[in-house]
Amino acid sequence: MKAPRLAAVILAGGAGTRFWPLSREARPKPLLKAGGSDTLLGEAVARARRFAARRDVWLVCGADHAAAMRRAAGLAPDRVLVEPCGRNTAPAVALAAARIAAEDPDAVITVLSADHRIPDADAFAESVHRAAPAAASGALVTLGVRPTRPETGYGYIRLGRRAGRAYPGLHRVSRFVEKPNRARAERYLARGGFLWNAGIFVWTARTILEEIERCAPRLARGLAPVRRAAAQGERLERALAKAWPKLPSEPIDTAVLERSRRVWCLPVDWRWSDVGTWASLAEELGVNGSDSHVLEGRALLCDAPGNLVRAHDRPIVLLGVEGLAVIDAGDAVLVTKLTNSGSVRDVVARLRKEGRSDLL
Amino acid sequence: MKAPRLAAVILAGGAGTRFWPLSREARPKPLLKAGGSDTLLGEAVARARRFAARRDVWLVCGADHAAAMRRAAGLAPDRVLVEPCGRNTAPAVALAAARIAAEDPDAVITVLSADHRIPDADAFAESVHRAAPAAASGALVTLGVRPTRPETGYGYIRLGRRAGRAYPGLHRVSRFVEKPNRARAERYLARGGFLWNAGIFVWTARTILEEIERCAPRLARGLAPVRRAAAQGERLERALAKAWPKLPSEPIDTAVLERSRRVWCLPVDWRWSDVGTWASLAEELGVNGSDSHVLEGRALLCDAPGNLVRAHDRPIVLLGVEGLAVIDAGDAVLVTKLTNSGSVRDVVARLRKEGRSDLL
Repeated sequence: MKAPRLAAVILAGGAGTRFWPLSREARPKPLLKAGGSDTLLGEAVARARRFAARRDVWLVCGADHAAAMRRAAGLAPDRVLVEPCGRNTAPAVALAAARIAAEDPDAVITVLSADHRIPDADAFAESVHRAAPAAASGALVTLGVRPTRPETGYGYIRLGRRAGRAYPGLHRVSRFVEKPNRARAERYLARGGFLWNAGIFVWTARTILEEIERCAPRLARGLAPVRRAAAQGERLERALAKAWPKLPSEPIDTAVLERSRRVWCLPVDWRWSDVGTWASLAEELGVNGSDSHVLEGRALLCDAPGNLVRAHDRPIVLLGVEGLAVIDAGDAVLVTKLTNSGSVRDVVARLRKEGRSDLL
Repeated sequence: MKAPRLAAVILAGGAGTRFWPLSREARPKPLLKAGGSDTLLGEAVARARRFAARRDVWLVCGADHAAAMRRAAGLAPDRVLVEPCGRNTAPAVALAAARIAAEDPDAVITVLSADHRIPDADAFAESVHRAAPAAASGALVTLGVRPTRPETGYGYIRLGRRAGRAYPGLHRVSRFVEKPNRARAERYLARGGFLWNAGIFVWTARTILEEIERCAPRLARGLAPVRRAAAQGERLERALAKAWPKLPSEPIDTAVLERSRRVWCLPVDWRWSDVGTWASLAEELGVNGSDSHVLEGRALLCDAPGNLVRAHDRPIVLLGVEGLAVIDAGDAVLVTKLTNSGSVRDVVARLRKEGRSDLL
């Protein structure tokens, strides 16, 4: 059997309001740097390039940020698929699959997010290679990350029985679990067999399109003109503009994965973060009781451990404070306790309510 | 007896490093706004104007900031006395007294600081009027502020016996006390009879010059050419340039007040603060467990009580933090616990050590 062609689809929807003031409507989270020299999107492209040729890396993003995203991703224009409006991940995944199927329906697609962080790109590529044979023979493989803490911000995958020789290393998925409360998250961690649902999937274009037909017929019907246009390689944009607004808005998880019988899970051990809050970014970057981290710019830390700092055009001095995020975005400064940083959303909501569109 | 002419001498030396990053070598504390619409210096001039004619308000300041100080004070150029270099308060007081004596040796001078805060200017003027008769008849009157908390940042005056009918309301000074530790400050507060030494004095030009001759002969000798130039109304600047660098650097407190036998104290009850730290400014401005204060600029406070905020060209959002000073000076941002704000000096020392003269 010939080794399948490996493709990557990077999903770059969502603004990431919890990263205010750095993330904005005009500057979404994938375009932020999160400790590395590159943007999160740039890092995602580099991650994909470990296993896929440049021509096989695809980006799906919203119309608002298409130009900036294209620049940051460094991909050819025809590899960037622009959604006329946000419809969550199921339509985005379907669109990319339709477009790739027109070139090679047996290509193995790895779906990943443009705004997550996986420091070990080699380990990630190795997992893709491990999942690929099962995907090539018809499995929908979801990657499950072994938890390292009782995280309440992620959904979980409960592992079922091992797949055995057919799919070495893979497991059935017993069930998908919503974000748990703290007590439950602690039980999951203690008991084992529960993995973080990282939203990373490996499957062929053919399989996912089949399963969308089966599990999400309304979406499949709505997408039919888009698939035809993609297959014929023409007027895709016009078909998208017409079909997209009428599509149901749904994540691929509930639309397909929780319904399909072809779903398998590959447990993985590498470090992964959805970088969902300033706190999780701080943890990613090694901020703890004794260390602070300066994201960008100049900072002077005097007796100030456990902080995450981002300076802009002027230095920031922290004196005798700990556990803070101090973020100067150039047009606004946020000072919050890291433990409170989930509430940044409330700030954004309040700014919206107060009509401060200049700060959104 | 004719009512004496009332003059005011405002001392504006000292950079106030504890107000970094707002106070700078190029922007000393008297030029800061501290909650009011005017600078501290402007407020001091207004305070003086409650009892003195504009021509009788004098300012002593350093050469570095003379132009800015003159602007902020709004005084005639000949009422601004410029020290060629800093020599603490004794020479500054002597210089002003010499200059005023040339016009009227019996003028009653109130010496006050350019960077303190006394919200009730009327009560202050009333105290000056109460002290003036004693001053006119030869007393050195120091105003003692009744303490409202066990402050360890101020020196204290221990009251002696009442002056009786000669100087109604005045007391002898039993002794001047250095800044106490916490336990001692609490005893002072509980016991009574200890007042804050506010560095506010009322005396005639003649008396203070006599007492400088008696108590600080070296200073008097060094100042003799300056006094002569002042008396003749010419070449004062040249005399200053020559004499000043050789003068002993000493506060008027130790040079004269702790040695003279003509010292009396007038206890006063109004609110006074030397606004020595961000914490004392915060307290002045009513910051407490439930209230924050925005000094300047736009700030959004979400679940953030007890903070002092100063925004510059971009809004500052505080989320779930308390007891902080967050100060954006435009070229540097300070984030510190108010309870730590005495250590801001250490930051300035560190910047100096690191050669960051741009931030000093």
